[in-house]
Amino acid sequence: MPLQTAETITVGSELTRGQSVDTHSALLARTLGQAGLRVRFQTSVGDRLDEIAEAVRTALGRADLVVVTGGLGPTLDDLSREGIAEATGRALAEDPALWAVIEARFRSFGRVPTENNRRQAFVPQGAVALDNANGTAPGLRLELGDKAVFALPGPPSELKPLLESEVLPWLLKRQGRHARSRSLQCYGLGESAVDQALKDLVPAGDTTSLAMLAHGHHVEIILSALEADPAAADAKVEALEAAVLERLGERIYSLDGRDLAQVVIDLLKEQRLNLATAESCTGGLIASRLTRVPGASEVYDGGVVTYSNSLKELLLEVPPFVLKRAGAVSKDTALAMAVGLARKLDADFSLAVTGIAGPDGGSDEKPVGTVHLALASPSGVKHQRCLFKNSDRAGVQSRAAQAALWMVYCALAEIEIPEEGTDRGGYQAAD
Amino acid sequence: MPLQTAETITVGSELTRGQSVDTHSALLARTLGQAGLRVRFQTSVGDRLDEIAEAVRTALGRADLVVVTGGLGPTLDDLSREGIAEATGRALAEDPALWAVIEARFRSFGRVPTENNRRQAFVPQGAVALDNANGTAPGLRLELGDKAVFALPGPPSELKPLLESEVLPWLLKRQGRHARSRSLQCYGLGESAVDQALKDLVPAGDTTSLAMLAHGHHVEIILSALEADPAAADAKVEALEAAVLERLGERIYSLDGRDLAQVVIDLLKEQRLNLATAESCTGGLIASRLTRVPGASEVYDGGVVTYSNSLKELLLEVPPFVLKRAGAVSKDTALAMAVGLARKLDADFSLAVTGIAGPDGGSDEKPVGTVHLALASPSGVKHQRCLFKNSDRAGVQSRAAQAALWMVYCALAEIEIPEEGTDRGGYQAAD
Repeated sequence: MPLQTAETITVGSELTRGQSVDTHSALLARTLGQAGLRVRFQTSVGDRLDEIAEAVRTALGRADLVVVTGGLGPTLDDLSREGIAEATGRALAEDPALWAVIEARFRSFGRVPTENNRRQAFVPQGAVALDNANGTAPGLRLELGDKAVFALPGPPSELKPLLESEVLPWLLKRQGRHARSRSLQCYGLGESAVDQALKDLVPAGDTTSLAMLAHGHHVEIILSALEADPAAADAKVEALEAAVLERLGERIYSLDGRDLAQVVIDLLKEQRLNLATAESCTGGLIASRLTRVPGASEVYDGGVVTYSNSLKELLLEVPPFVLKRAGAVSKDTALAMAVGLARKLDADFSLAVTGIAGPDGGSDEKPVGTVHLALASPSGVKHQRCLFKNSDRAGVQSRAAQAALWMVYCALAEIEIPEEGTDRGGYQAAD
Repeated sequence: MPLQTAETITVGSELTRGQSVDTHSALLARTLGQAGLRVRFQTSVGDRLDEIAEAVRTALGRADLVVVTGGLGPTLDDLSREGIAEATGRALAEDPALWAVIEARFRSFGRVPTENNRRQAFVPQGAVALDNANGTAPGLRLELGDKAVFALPGPPSELKPLLESEVLPWLLKRQGRHARSRSLQCYGLGESAVDQALKDLVPAGDTTSLAMLAHGHHVEIILSALEADPAAADAKVEALEAAVLERLGERIYSLDGRDLAQVVIDLLKEQRLNLATAESCTGGLIASRLTRVPGASEVYDGGVVTYSNSLKELLLEVPPFVLKRAGAVSKDTALAMAVGLARKLDADFSLAVTGIAGPDGGSDEKPVGTVHLALASPSGVKHQRCLFKNSDRAGVQSRAAQAALWMVYCALAEIEIPEEGTDRGGYQAAD
């Protein structure tokens, strides 16, 4: 019988004390969803044996699959092994073969295991150890009739690979299903607008699914298909992708999870062009996003942060009368910044941003959230005016940076952009 | 009898589907901890009536206080009211006075309530409505003998004020306690080093507590005291703060939760000085952190992102022979960048950063994570070399930006810094 429902348990007193935010539960839910399981409850519990055991017992009483993360380390407050043994009534015993594997892993890291590490070789009776190539704590899988329990290490660099290599494949095999998924990135529409545009694509009860994740300045669309036949899963997810592209068209800038800055860098590399930036209200955020991409230096030399008027004059030679007449936040200043940057750095694309991030500095004519973008290139100088409503300072900066990268993307992908920006953000469906 | 234990329940299918990360549970845990309650379990559940009711029933069976967030909106999948009523066996009835309050709130927002909003005026028998000044969904408090249930709206802008105005004061009164807490920010020590240095300050069973929160490039230390007498709580938390300052001294740069960039901006304002930046490996991140602070423009004019050697020559007039002989990542280049920046922009402080963020570009002599900082000011040019081990590209950039801001902070606060950096990060206790 296939597994239908799941419960996840994240273990650690840093969670129940509020010292850490639990990001694992969301990752686990997405992974389990790929195998067609529905998560009923997500539980966090501190490092106490009685409470871990209680959480596992409760979870096994109400879900087919239980996934425990954390609490598999070598220290005395790592108690997930003991909690699972107690909840399932299985004795915990040392597995000598597993201890040999752990010792070898330590040697490969150039370290020597302590006597404490021996605890990591203990497994509940009947459990299978899962090889953890990125750490010393093995994962565990324990089948209990129609149900199953996984125990996985807490560090993300160990958890993620084990989910991919051990949990998802086992689940798909157990379910007799093949999963395919894709992550599309969409610019300029809010979550509810994307939902509205796509909601009839997946009929109720279908084996495909479509989920929206709002990321502040864009919306991620996750397509997935779950089929007995792998070719059918491929075909389903491809058909769904084609349908999404038909509806959202040019607003989809990435079919493989890449960030917009990464997409821009990749297009610049392909077209052997380079970029320079002049930032006022975004204050270095665009430069920072570009330089977070490994290898950005091939196509991005840098730029200037001209936060004050005097630096706009000094570094970009924006004429003082432009600043005086039109104001620092204006089409004329944005154009002058882009042209000044082009003259100074001689890049193929010269991008300039000026705006009002707030909380102060707004007026009726130019409210907080007003941003002017300009892009100078051999094909001319383009301008766009955006208004980012209902955003705080960091939100305006973040959305302005995304809009500016979008402008470069459109130039590279030969997409026309309107003079007035249309970004409605990923979290601003209502404005 | 005081409440001892708590369980929190966050409601929303976006959580159980993995589309959102649950940040509320950590916030709730910290708030409840301030009132001396220990959170045993944190549960998330989707928008299904039977499962919400099951979560509330289970929680009431194992904790003194249950706090439910989310699911109080007007739509048909907002089912927390119904779930609590079902779990506690209390009938749900419309409260006409509450409906009048909700209607008035809508009018004050310039909106008209729909018939659906009427659902928000239903309360379980015996529950007290909590006025929500920032939204239309009232919170609820239901006392059940020795136990109690709170239901709070999900949007953070509504949840946080209600925790402060309704939940924490009620709890403290119920417990007969006064809580005081402070948040200190510490640079240059890992979480475990801070823990090691401070762990004997709070004896077991004491009414004060001390918690460490690792934030990547710094560690937050939260001090709290819980006393029947408010003056005693004040005195306790002050004594604890003094003891922490005695041990960690100059490494504490903020006693009130302010970020290092904000502290630097504030000190610059106080001392009527200004700052300019020249960034290579941090690629605009320092500028971006400074300009995220409202009013930064008073003391920060901007700077340059000189990611390539050619821009270091063009914008900062770094002599080509320096770049050639010492390399772009070197003490000499950092110094030349700072001096060039000072000459160009004439700021009181000219900060320069160059380093290897990785993943490529490292060597035995200059491994990934090597960063040179230089700060030119009227009192001379200072240099510091840092090595950020065990960090990915974003981690090196983040820690380098923090180290650079720390260098400016030390100059403003007249703290000596060593030639070799000692940042061990907030999350790199082991390196």
